[in-house]
Amino acid sequence: MLDTDSITVPTLILNESLAREHIRKLSQKAKEQNIRFRPHFKTHQSTTIAEWFREEGVTAITCSSLRMAEYFAAAGWADILVAFPINIREIKRINKLAKAIHLEILLADPSILGELDKSLETKVDAWVKIDAGYGRAGVSTEKKPEVLDFLQKVTASENLNLKGLLTHAGQTYRTNSASTAIAMHKASTDRMLLLKDYLSKKGYPDLQISVGDTPGCWLSDQLGGVDEIRPGNFVFFDCHQVEIGTCQAQDIAVALACPIVAVQPEQEKVIVYGGTIHLSSERVSLDGNITFGLPVLLTSEGWGAPIPGAYVPSLSQEHGVLHVPRAICATLKAGMLVGILPAHSCITVSCMRQYLTLENQVILAMDHPGSVQKQGNRNKKK
Amino acid sequence: MLDTDSITVPTLILNESLAREHIRKLSQKAKEQNIRFRPHFKTHQSTTIAEWFREEGVTAITCSSLRMAEYFAAAGWADILVAFPINIREIKRINKLAKAIHLEILLADPSILGELDKSLETKVDAWVKIDAGYGRAGVSTEKKPEVLDFLQKVTASENLNLKGLLTHAGQTYRTNSASTAIAMHKASTDRMLLLKDYLSKKGYPDLQISVGDTPGCWLSDQLGGVDEIRPGNFVFFDCHQVEIGTCQAQDIAVALACPIVAVQPEQEKVIVYGGTIHLSSERVSLDGNITFGLPVLLTSEGWGAPIPGAYVPSLSQEHGVLHVPRAICATLKAGMLVGILPAHSCITVSCMRQYLTLENQVILAMDHPGSVQKQGNRNKKK
Repeated sequence: MLDTDSITVPTLILNESLAREHIRKLSQKAKEQNIRFRPHFKTHQSTTIAEWFREEGVTAITCSSLRMAEYFAAAGWADILVAFPINIREIKRINKLAKAIHLEILLADPSILGELDKSLETKVDAWVKIDAGYGRAGVSTEKKPEVLDFLQKVTASENLNLKGLLTHAGQTYRTNSASTAIAMHKASTDRMLLLKDYLSKKGYPDLQISVGDTPGCWLSDQLGGVDEIRPGNFVFFDCHQVEIGTCQAQDIAVALACPIVAVQPEQEKVIVYGGTIHLSSERVSLDGNITFGLPVLLTSEGWGAPIPGAYVPSLSQEHGVLHVPRAICATLKAGMLVGILPAHSCITVSCMRQYLTLENQVILAMDHPGSVQKQGNRNKKK
Repeated sequence: MLDTDSITVPTLILNESLAREHIRKLSQKAKEQNIRFRPHFKTHQSTTIAEWFREEGVTAITCSSLRMAEYFAAAGWADILVAFPINIREIKRINKLAKAIHLEILLADPSILGELDKSLETKVDAWVKIDAGYGRAGVSTEKKPEVLDFLQKVTASENLNLKGLLTHAGQTYRTNSASTAIAMHKASTDRMLLLKDYLSKKGYPDLQISVGDTPGCWLSDQLGGVDEIRPGNFVFFDCHQVEIGTCQAQDIAVALACPIVAVQPEQEKVIVYGGTIHLSSERVSLDGNITFGLPVLLTSEGWGAPIPGAYVPSLSQEHGVLHVPRAICATLKAGMLVGILPAHSCITVSCMRQYLTLENQVILAMDHPGSVQKQGNRNKKK
């Protein structure tokens, strides 16, 4: 039973059993299809929650930064892919981590291969970043000779062990139809498999394929043909996944509990303590409204379905402005709590960096991105 | 001279002398016009930077949360207004702080006055939140009898000492014309003065007026008629203030230094390490582009004007995608640094929580919002 009385400031509430259910479901699917499940830990960012994955048999993970990899390595994770284009400026820490665990890296720009090869002190497994339709980073699947040239440079490097081709079908985040997301994911995978086929004939028969978007991996019955999936968001889901059609609002496992500080029923408006620095400025389009999240009523049991007709039209640094239909407005008053299901849970976690479970347990996530320099040698002032 | 070689991860660079210049300029204006300068510290969130204000004679400050007030009180600030509607759930900490310093609070909902009055253990100065055209929170200046009723309830309270009327002319953030921002600020102030006049005749002759938006306070030559100004953003400025017309890009005192991880000149695209968790998802519209900031070249001297034609069309959790015209793209490569002037500096500071000055000094800001619970008694897991 959540001790709601103990909540005095914006607090990220986590429904542990729901998150565990999501983890179990996707672990199971990957196992059944004999695909390596390397979940992305950038969503939960917590060594405690990581253990819930370990209980489902997960041993290999994905991180979005070297500092995140260091954080999980310190907690005993020994097989980590940093699915972010390698940042050569961090080479000292890369070398250190690569000696301590099995570290896999991602290559997105061939121009650094020479310097990287010279700087690496151990052999590391490397993936080449491929753009299979998303358009963010990597070499396009359409540019087969360019990919081949990239691979040849990798294999010519002494310290890089070419593992395969990696893509993120982020285009599935741009639809609001589950069937379209499935089709986009399949089209992306098909492009990867065609590329693999081409490269196989060019002397690279053993390339692995790694893919990684939550909508595609969650929704597709068959993940066939790939070696590895790297979804992350599914552990909590969020309003963006509802917008896409990956899940329903009741599948979302986190809600920001916000103290109500003013109710203006005439304007159907509720002002809460809970703003951009808590939820982030991510927004989605749901039921015709641009919203920073979905308001829910909070009780000691957790929360139910979103309040019908309610949304979050604006956020300031610390304020949230909720539109709440008059009938529900009349039941709310300053001093009560209301919950907000976040638009993008990964970023809300990055803002809050800790959870309170429905069983009143505080779970910490890794520190904020500025914190890395605390370890530096620079002249410091508080 | 900034030691750019020492920068390996996204780092918020601060031009201290520029920030000090902004502080000096606005302090001076307030002094000349005999208006109390109570700067908002939610932008810099740092006790080190707070001292730069103290050197200009500032003794009274504004905070956006109780935890921020506690942070600055611990550093010796003894006159603090929390310009956020009072959150009754924090009453224990409010009472503690109100005994330690001169704390001023903000009232936005009369329905909590009874409970608040009973719970307060000392008399505190209170402002009533007025909506003078912004439409976020507070009683509208148009509803004069409603304001009067609110004031009567405050004066009937034993522990509340009515200090005056407070507004935030946030509407000035919705224009892209300096002259319109000035006119909006003046219209807002005029509405406050008319309301004051009405209330004076109704038995409230001593009400003070507090206003607080950066565009209005920075741009208006005359701030006449008000007792107090509370701007905050001017200390650093940002792209949003450039969009409004409050300042030029060269007035922005912070830039996020980002390692380049891939350059794709054919697409005029540069991928950097630096995303939503560093810059925030705030965006502005500049030169016809929706952008998360303005790219600048970084050197040991700092940074110059924005790269002509460059912008930041998209951010992921850790990635930034920059559009950079081909000619400049050709001069960049993976491993170099690029700077991004943030869309909204207050929120970027909330993400990064520390600065590196051009003189290589690390300045820490207050901790992230989740950190308050570290002090709690709950069952904790790392």
